[in-house]
Amino acid sequence: MSDATPDYRFLRALRRQSVDRTPIWIMRQAGRYLPEYRATRERAGSFLALAQTPELACEVTLQPLARFALDAAILFSDILTIPDAMGLGLHFVDGEGPKLHRPLRSAADIARLGAPDPETDLRYVMDAVRLIRRELGARAPLIGFSGSPWTLACYMIEGEGSSSFTRAKALALDDPRTMHRLLDTLAQAVAAYLTAQAAAGAQALMVFDTWGGLLAPDAFGEFSREPMAAVVACLKAHPVTRDVPLILFSKGANGHLESLADTGCDALGVDWTIGIGQARARVGARVALHGNLDPATLATAPETIRAQARKIIEDFGAHPGHVFNLGHGITPDIDPAHVAVLVDAVHEFSVKKAGSRE
Amino acid sequence: MSDATPDYRFLRALRRQSVDRTPIWIMRQAGRYLPEYRATRERAGSFLALAQTPELACEVTLQPLARFALDAAILFSDILTIPDAMGLGLHFVDGEGPKLHRPLRSAADIARLGAPDPETDLRYVMDAVRLIRRELGARAPLIGFSGSPWTLACYMIEGEGSSSFTRAKALALDDPRTMHRLLDTLAQAVAAYLTAQAAAGAQALMVFDTWGGLLAPDAFGEFSREPMAAVVACLKAHPVTRDVPLILFSKGANGHLESLADTGCDALGVDWTIGIGQARARVGARVALHGNLDPATLATAPETIRAQARKIIEDFGAHPGHVFNLGHGITPDIDPAHVAVLVDAVHEFSVKKAGSRE
Repeated sequence: MSDATPDYRFLRALRRQSVDRTPIWIMRQAGRYLPEYRATRERAGSFLALAQTPELACEVTLQPLARFALDAAILFSDILTIPDAMGLGLHFVDGEGPKLHRPLRSAADIARLGAPDPETDLRYVMDAVRLIRRELGARAPLIGFSGSPWTLACYMIEGEGSSSFTRAKALALDDPRTMHRLLDTLAQAVAAYLTAQAAAGAQALMVFDTWGGLLAPDAFGEFSREPMAAVVACLKAHPVTRDVPLILFSKGANGHLESLADTGCDALGVDWTIGIGQARARVGARVALHGNLDPATLATAPETIRAQARKIIEDFGAHPGHVFNLGHGITPDIDPAHVAVLVDAVHEFSVKKAGSRE
Repeated sequence: MSDATPDYRFLRALRRQSVDRTPIWIMRQAGRYLPEYRATRERAGSFLALAQTPELACEVTLQPLARFALDAAILFSDILTIPDAMGLGLHFVDGEGPKLHRPLRSAADIARLGAPDPETDLRYVMDAVRLIRRELGARAPLIGFSGSPWTLACYMIEGEGSSSFTRAKALALDDPRTMHRLLDTLAQAVAAYLTAQAAAGAQALMVFDTWGGLLAPDAFGEFSREPMAAVVACLKAHPVTRDVPLILFSKGANGHLESLADTGCDALGVDWTIGIGQARARVGARVALHGNLDPATLATAPETIRAQARKIIEDFGAHPGHVFNLGHGITPDIDPAHVAVLVDAVHEFSVKKAGSRE
């Protein structure tokens, strides 16, 4: 695959190589702020039908690239595909987010779980990856993704979203052995799932640790970082994924950037509550950084968006290894014209720095 | 008032003086996890009637002190009393939290606002403080509180709670002059409100900056910290509040502990996503620290609660200046018996350290 891959600035930046301008993509770029997404979603009948039909998933994946000069596409899928493939019964209740019919309620429930086989149990995802790659051509590289073991465990134990994930935390503290059993199974499942996505054509991989930041520091190390490090080790030991850039994004976990960089991943996602220059100073040249505009900035005036984008580019400085993004997903209330302003501003302000790169 | 105040360990700890054991109280200790609270709330007819009737507010304030060996009481009130007194129309919609009938929609709306007079416009709060002090006697000191200017501004602009407060952030970035006008008015209002609470009998004061942690670093400094620093300066310049210990709590803002300590407050609240020993190492002896058990820990087994409490006490170390608390409010699902386990554990494990204090 790598022989056929053009020299995309997105992949170069993740490898901390020099680029002509800072690449940008936007978390949740295929989403509800786009009228064409809402139309396809309507046609699909449900979010799950949209995510599980490769042709429709491909269609919405490509929509933002038709509008904006984005430097990467990301597979359109749900974060809970693995728990669903494990038999927990993913479904959506209007206005309430994802739910699982059969959350884990005992150590026996956990002992029964096995890692799904991606090509059989998650075939619709692999078919979507293959189709998107074919349709994308050389337009942009494709990012595959998974939830982190801890984040998947949170949903699997709680059965739905939560602001505190008290059940999951209580299991981790009261019965760490059982929690580790679950996290070990999930680390295997996540590694196999990402490897299969890379084999199907994904050119970069990302792990979303949405709920790691809810943990106290010791618990973060033990239940969020350690299983992610196991995923990284698997991917970096496998011929299919060894050279595929891997991004870890633990939202709200800026206190742990150093230990996350030490996992051996290629890049770290950074949310907007830390200056990206300060984050860079802490991790040095070990990893690329991915971020970190406050998503709310897209609700401001075009000149404000431009000024804030410029500030982040200047704050990162003249190092290689920056992928511009928001610090969290774009929200449905955003005017798509503002996204165009941001994408163009990032390319415009960063081209001036290109000559001075290390 | 200070002549009549006994030498409470809670107030001593906030002043970084030696104590016989670590004091503890629990954010939202008068709350829905207590059946007697739910009974009084039922009798009141609504949350607002409960908060606005001094006899009922006093009753629920005292309930947790009748059950547990807590070292402080906190005024039972709502965080949005000031916007309500400014005419924005506070009300509650079942299951949706607080809302304002007339959110701020223009610079003209903001220019019209004036700081309320606490003794006339917020008389029910001052009457509650006086009544609670009388009923408390020497049992424990009473904490008065307010929302921070930024947190109040978020609600006043958005009109309700939000996970992103995009409108408030967009106003701050697009029109900082108008936002500062609002924050200046709110800083005056908060200082006057806290001063009146102290005059009515509150023996410590706390500012809850619930939404400061949602801001990018520069914006945090300008829109959250700076107005809080103005409140601190007012309180430390006023004879009524000069010697009343003042706690600032910016949730999710552990990146800013140093600059918050530099405001001149007496103590900082710390959430559970940083080790309290690390927080202490960063702020040194400048301020006391208040925290920081993960609230989810109260859902674990008694021996786990005890072990986690001990870990925090040992992590803080043998310095003066620790008030034990959760890193956020207690949730309604907690068994009150677990609160007793925590309170007793904190007293038990900290008494051994008392001899070694600085």
